[in-house]
Amino acid sequence: MYQPGLKGIIAAETELSYINGEKGELLYRGIPVHDFVHNYSCEETAFYLLNGRTAHASELANLRSKLIAYRNIPSYVEEIIDVLPRDLSMMDVLRTAISSLEMSRNMKNYEIALNLIAVFPTIIAYRYRSINNLPRIQPASDNLNHVENFMYMLTGEVSKTKAQILEKYLILTMEHGLNASTFAARVTISTESDLVAAITSALGTMKGPLHGGAPTGVINLLEEISSNDRIHEVITTKLANKQRIMGFGHRVYKTVDPRAEALKETILKLDDVPKWIELAMETEQETIKILQQHKPNQQLYTNVEYYAAAIMKTLELDPELFTAIFSSSRIVGWCAHAIEQLDNNILYRPDVKYIGKK
Amino acid sequence: MYQPGLKGIIAAETELSYINGEKGELLYRGIPVHDFVHNYSCEETAFYLLNGRTAHASELANLRSKLIAYRNIPSYVEEIIDVLPRDLSMMDVLRTAISSLEMSRNMKNYEIALNLIAVFPTIIAYRYRSINNLPRIQPASDNLNHVENFMYMLTGEVSKTKAQILEKYLILTMEHGLNASTFAARVTISTESDLVAAITSALGTMKGPLHGGAPTGVINLLEEISSNDRIHEVITTKLANKQRIMGFGHRVYKTVDPRAEALKETILKLDDVPKWIELAMETEQETIKILQQHKPNQQLYTNVEYYAAAIMKTLELDPELFTAIFSSSRIVGWCAHAIEQLDNNILYRPDVKYIGKK
Repeated sequence: MYQPGLKGIIAAETELSYINGEKGELLYRGIPVHDFVHNYSCEETAFYLLNGRTAHASELANLRSKLIAYRNIPSYVEEIIDVLPRDLSMMDVLRTAISSLEMSRNMKNYEIALNLIAVFPTIIAYRYRSINNLPRIQPASDNLNHVENFMYMLTGEVSKTKAQILEKYLILTMEHGLNASTFAARVTISTESDLVAAITSALGTMKGPLHGGAPTGVINLLEEISSNDRIHEVITTKLANKQRIMGFGHRVYKTVDPRAEALKETILKLDDVPKWIELAMETEQETIKILQQHKPNQQLYTNVEYYAAAIMKTLELDPELFTAIFSSSRIVGWCAHAIEQLDNNILYRPDVKYIGKK
Repeated sequence: MYQPGLKGIIAAETELSYINGEKGELLYRGIPVHDFVHNYSCEETAFYLLNGRTAHASELANLRSKLIAYRNIPSYVEEIIDVLPRDLSMMDVLRTAISSLEMSRNMKNYEIALNLIAVFPTIIAYRYRSINNLPRIQPASDNLNHVENFMYMLTGEVSKTKAQILEKYLILTMEHGLNASTFAARVTISTESDLVAAITSALGTMKGPLHGGAPTGVINLLEEISSNDRIHEVITTKLANKQRIMGFGHRVYKTVDPRAEALKETILKLDDVPKWIELAMETEQETIKILQQHKPNQQLYTNVEYYAAAIMKTLELDPELFTAIFSSSRIVGWCAHAIEQLDNNILYRPDVKYIGKK
């Protein structure tokens, strides 16, 4: 029997995440994402996903120092980024730079994973600033954590609040089952290829608009609304014109997306709720009310992309960076899946149904 | 139910090839590979696989001239190849160079496919000669066909016989169902990513020893045997020591691999059967006899890699080039599958079985 898109077919066993779309649950190795976003740093979450247990203080210090040491990219990778055509998308640049990396044959996959996690922000920031004719910012040598350093390399500044908001977002999007990019990573490494090749495949897959998406639609919506008193008018006009309201609804979650919920909660705890987040929350509340009147049989809630858009606006980051930044968190899930695949490997070699001439 | 490796699960509908492992049949869009290897050129076979029909003379002329025009790689791709570390494998170099290619947004996928097919040999030859400190050979501008030009760029010479042997091999390995690399290409493009990303994923997947393999095992075997009078001794000693006889047996074919058969036939028609091919054929005959005595319940025949090894020896090509050369034919199948996927696309998003903590 042919199931298009392998819908409902189990393609792997995993210990990494558990998703219950009906209940709006997402667990990383048994722990709700809610707990990670409140109590864990980006580094701690990555350690937990890769190792299956919480890091001891010394292990965490070790992980931090490795991520710092690996932040620097080899000069030949900079040369490659420099010669790539200006019009190549950020995702194409990131994929090509990652594909070019040489890892020593003696390096364990866990070590390669840390190396890859560490270089994503550097590659993205290096390209972003060079394409925008901004002076290069070298990675910070020790005083900044993974996310602070990312913001610093992109913008030249470190706002603790902004770094915290980005960190929450990155933690919440690190892992999400067998989405297409994660699946591509598992298929690639199942031939006993290597982790660099697997992540390269994942990046090319993430690029597609059906997957990595872009928050542009939501950003346009929020910009069009621009202030609380215009929410009702903009949304009802869109519904009257049968236009889609961007950022509402998810393929998996049939209730509140637990990541959107956790993001909102954590942002509300900030001393100063950023303007765009406030507008996004007001818009969400009012839109859900309107949607319940217009489409009472559908359950449409905001998805994680909805808040991602508000976050990008708040952080004043170029929307062009969105899919690459998303990838800089999902890389943790990709690596964890690829390593899990190798631990109990079997080559992917499905069948086809031949429907051609005989 | 979980089927490891998606064994027996239909993951796509295809018109591209039909494989019957029991009967030893392989059809490209309804026509036995046997016919292609006897009656079609590399260009004609690629046209047929991509378009589903035989090319008219003018279409074929058009295809040839496009492949010639696309042979040249942009100078920035040469710069990338030049700065890549010496120890990076040929497959890593090929993947990175392909990943770096910029295709105009207006270019149709068929056109991009021709462009990719055309540049593979140039990238491989450019890297091969540069890493071996040999002077660069520019692609021939018009007098050589796709395969002749490949041999010319690699070796500086064009032997019609050698080019013919390579051509037969490339035709026979262009397409072979949903192997892991082809599957990776389909998963990647199913997000509506692009053809360059899909082929990049395929290359990273092909690299793995469980898939793209390497003929080194068979080459070592043939070199160890080296002359007809030593076949019996080498093979029986290996069997007594419970060593695997490389090049015998295939996951799909339970009888003669139709590609091995066709290769053998076509090579026997040459005026001058090369020494290594002759030794390979003698070794095959004798080994099958010995295997039938030792393992009467198993049906072990030579696979296409067995003859690929003999061909690499005959063409005096570095075994390091094997997987890249294999990729330079399989790119046709990858592109045809990716285009077929997009024609009737649905995102790959299989399920997982969660076996971790709850």
